[in-house]
Amino acid sequence: MSTRKIGPASLARLMGGWHRVGGKVPAYRQIQHALRLLILDGRLPIGVRLPGERHLAEVLGVSRTTIGAAYAGLRDLGFVVSRHGSGSLTRLPSEAKRLPDEAHDDSLMEFSIAAPPAPKEIHAAYTSALAELPIYLPALGYEPAGLVGLRQVIADRYVRRGVPTAPDEILVTQGAQHGLVLALSLLSRPGDQVVVDQPTYPKALDAIANASCQAIPVPLPPSGWDIEMLDATLRQTGARISYLIPDFHNPSGRCMNEFSRAALAKIMVDRGCNLIVDETMADLWLDQGPPSPVAHFDRGGKIISLGSMSKSYWGGMRIGWVRADRDIIRAMALHRSSHDMGGPVLEQLAAMSLLRNEESSLPDKRDQIRRQRDHLLALLGRKFPDWNFENPQGGLSVWVELPVPVAIALTAAAREQGLRIAPGSRFGVDGALNRFLRLPYSLPESSIDVAVERLSCAWDNVANGKCRTTKLDPDNLTSAI
Amino acid sequence: MSTRKIGPASLARLMGGWHRVGGKVPAYRQIQHALRLLILDGRLPIGVRLPGERHLAEVLGVSRTTIGAAYAGLRDLGFVVSRHGSGSLTRLPSEAKRLPDEAHDDSLMEFSIAAPPAPKEIHAAYTSALAELPIYLPALGYEPAGLVGLRQVIADRYVRRGVPTAPDEILVTQGAQHGLVLALSLLSRPGDQVVVDQPTYPKALDAIANASCQAIPVPLPPSGWDIEMLDATLRQTGARISYLIPDFHNPSGRCMNEFSRAALAKIMVDRGCNLIVDETMADLWLDQGPPSPVAHFDRGGKIISLGSMSKSYWGGMRIGWVRADRDIIRAMALHRSSHDMGGPVLEQLAAMSLLRNEESSLPDKRDQIRRQRDHLLALLGRKFPDWNFENPQGGLSVWVELPVPVAIALTAAAREQGLRIAPGSRFGVDGALNRFLRLPYSLPESSIDVAVERLSCAWDNVANGKCRTTKLDPDNLTSAI
Repeated sequence: MSTRKIGPASLARLMGGWHRVGGKVPAYRQIQHALRLLILDGRLPIGVRLPGERHLAEVLGVSRTTIGAAYAGLRDLGFVVSRHGSGSLTRLPSEAKRLPDEAHDDSLMEFSIAAPPAPKEIHAAYTSALAELPIYLPALGYEPAGLVGLRQVIADRYVRRGVPTAPDEILVTQGAQHGLVLALSLLSRPGDQVVVDQPTYPKALDAIANASCQAIPVPLPPSGWDIEMLDATLRQTGARISYLIPDFHNPSGRCMNEFSRAALAKIMVDRGCNLIVDETMADLWLDQGPPSPVAHFDRGGKIISLGSMSKSYWGGMRIGWVRADRDIIRAMALHRSSHDMGGPVLEQLAAMSLLRNEESSLPDKRDQIRRQRDHLLALLGRKFPDWNFENPQGGLSVWVELPVPVAIALTAAAREQGLRIAPGSRFGVDGALNRFLRLPYSLPESSIDVAVERLSCAWDNVANGKCRTTKLDPDNLTSAI
Repeated sequence: MSTRKIGPASLARLMGGWHRVGGKVPAYRQIQHALRLLILDGRLPIGVRLPGERHLAEVLGVSRTTIGAAYAGLRDLGFVVSRHGSGSLTRLPSEAKRLPDEAHDDSLMEFSIAAPPAPKEIHAAYTSALAELPIYLPALGYEPAGLVGLRQVIADRYVRRGVPTAPDEILVTQGAQHGLVLALSLLSRPGDQVVVDQPTYPKALDAIANASCQAIPVPLPPSGWDIEMLDATLRQTGARISYLIPDFHNPSGRCMNEFSRAALAKIMVDRGCNLIVDETMADLWLDQGPPSPVAHFDRGGKIISLGSMSKSYWGGMRIGWVRADRDIIRAMALHRSSHDMGGPVLEQLAAMSLLRNEESSLPDKRDQIRRQRDHLLALLGRKFPDWNFENPQGGLSVWVELPVPVAIALTAAAREQGLRIAPGSRFGVDGALNRFLRLPYSLPESSIDVAVERLSCAWDNVANGKCRTTKLDPDNLTSAI
């Protein structure tokens, strides 16, 4: 495994506002908590060499003894291993016997994932798929581009939304993230720049980094998108790829208007740039349906659209798709088989059944999510009068602006209240956005009540030092991976 | 997309024995066929700039006019596009309306894939999975490391085979190839060398190339493995990763003995090298069960084992796994979610049901494959007395040595007989092994009869010019992607 290093200034940036305003916890413990959180979040990778104590102490403005004590505490907890000659390396405690996938069952309430449980139609869809399966059993089962029938159903959906599409312009994937990884590996080369919104979906940033590309953030303005700045950024950087979420943007929930979509599509042709459009949330409109997909305005084969069933149906069903020019789809299908051999047949049959009957389940789902959104927003307005947020027009989350840049500290404090939340810094490049939080409304209203109560306690702790420390020992929360 | 180049000498190596011994087809057509085959095979990627006509003519020892005519023919067929200032680039004809996944249904008989149809137990496994599904529906469905229950079942299998294993030493993947991609992306860095057998599984070579690593081939000796040469290669190159298939090696079907396994495990510790062991075929032993898995001999956490259900059950079920040191598994699970969000829940439940009852379906499957193997080998012995092959001890294919290095030409000739076969060059680094073929015995005996008949005709065509050209116009076979 690699032995990467992180410099003291970079680490300090990642730590953001590590000190809790008004907290009585000694500095070494606060630093220890901040570092542990970064490791658990995956933002500080495993096997990275931490800066020397003296250098980090200088940058953070604390004594060397403080850093020494923080490192020693992390060593005791199993988050750091010190090797003679190679310094202090990050690790995960192997004595933590609990598995990563048990994280959802632990004492922490999950308020960092914006994803719904399965609707009742899922089981029926699998049952109908099982009835169709025997037709497929004599074949070898390898379909790198996806079953033709499913590609047809997905193409028909685009046609209904105003985008002429044939089945050979569709590739079935394991989800939108998988589609993004495939698109990047086909279209990008190491070192390429990829223009993204800021904030944006964290796992998209991960995928861009994994493709050895550099994400170039363009900040979202107070409303809509700044298409001129996007254009200027493409011109100045010469970037050939962009990734945007115009349909109920994650995390903000905003929707791009028709005028901006048309302008965007034209800019991509003018600048010779491919635009990857993530439509994962497109079905989850809450106030009114979105305008035509960006691909509707495409005049040069520059738009690659990503779809997914994880948010509008269930995360345990792993089906997504890419819609693009048929030459790109063809190349992607050829390329894909060096990564995996295509998706499971039964899964694709179940997806086909759900998509054929989409209007039988989506309206109920939208009603439910709309109620949950309104409930969360009303609670936030009451409990946190000094927090700002815009009303999300769709999707599953609200993007909250705190009055002070303490999201990472608040995340640590929430953990002590038994609540896992997603700090804004996960949604930006270079650890920025520490003034923001993403809060999901994909939970039932009663769970939202509990989560907001705990969040409120954590906020008091961070902002005023009012809450007493709970009995949960934060050092025992290592299963939250 | 990239604008890579290929030099005339490299292209000539890829083309191998492009001229058909004794054929009456003009040279420009033969070159055109060879290049088209390389593009369709994916061995010559899309968007690569071909060498200038003069340079390729020199290297192939033909006139420049010949190359000009070959390129012109490829342009007409849509396999090459010429752009002013950037030469001739490879492409796929977009007017070929048929989808890649229809390739299996076209007029070509598939004799290049070593994979069986589904056994009758598959449907029952999905039915039982569906009964269990409701328990999982209220959860979010994201399990980056796999369902704990399935990890337990897989761990138990290793324990029964003599390898103490806990569930947190198992990661569930979409198949062995996906496991290999994850292992390489965690353990390798661009430019790393990966020591492999030669021949080896072509998609493993693809995965190594995609990870920007270099495959260092160690030739298989006439029998067994040359462990000393493997050790010497690791010593000389300093490579830190190796990929081998000791359990019914693909394509040769040979099995590594216990002594070599123990020696190999020790070498990996001595040289500080990680060994990725592909056990995809381990269940498909035909004469006697394999020795203990290589991981049984591991004393330093250096062995990463890959398993899959695609060959022993069905390719349409996409479940595989990685077994490794728990720190590696933990890091892989964290890393994975930037690629995909984990596998489908139902698929994992079905896999659990099949693996719990593995001895109810595998013996029948082995009997059937054994009969097919014996049938193919007997036929080959009768029809091709001057071909050499060793008796595969397991797996799904036999590795055939031709008397002359004309496998690529034979592949083209077989295509004209309506048969798709896999030339040996796909199984080696740098286009070597043009003297070899991999033939699968995963088909029913009656299909093997037809395939061998067509192969025999193609062979006559290549070796003696005896067969008349069939009515199939090879220029219309562009759907065979």
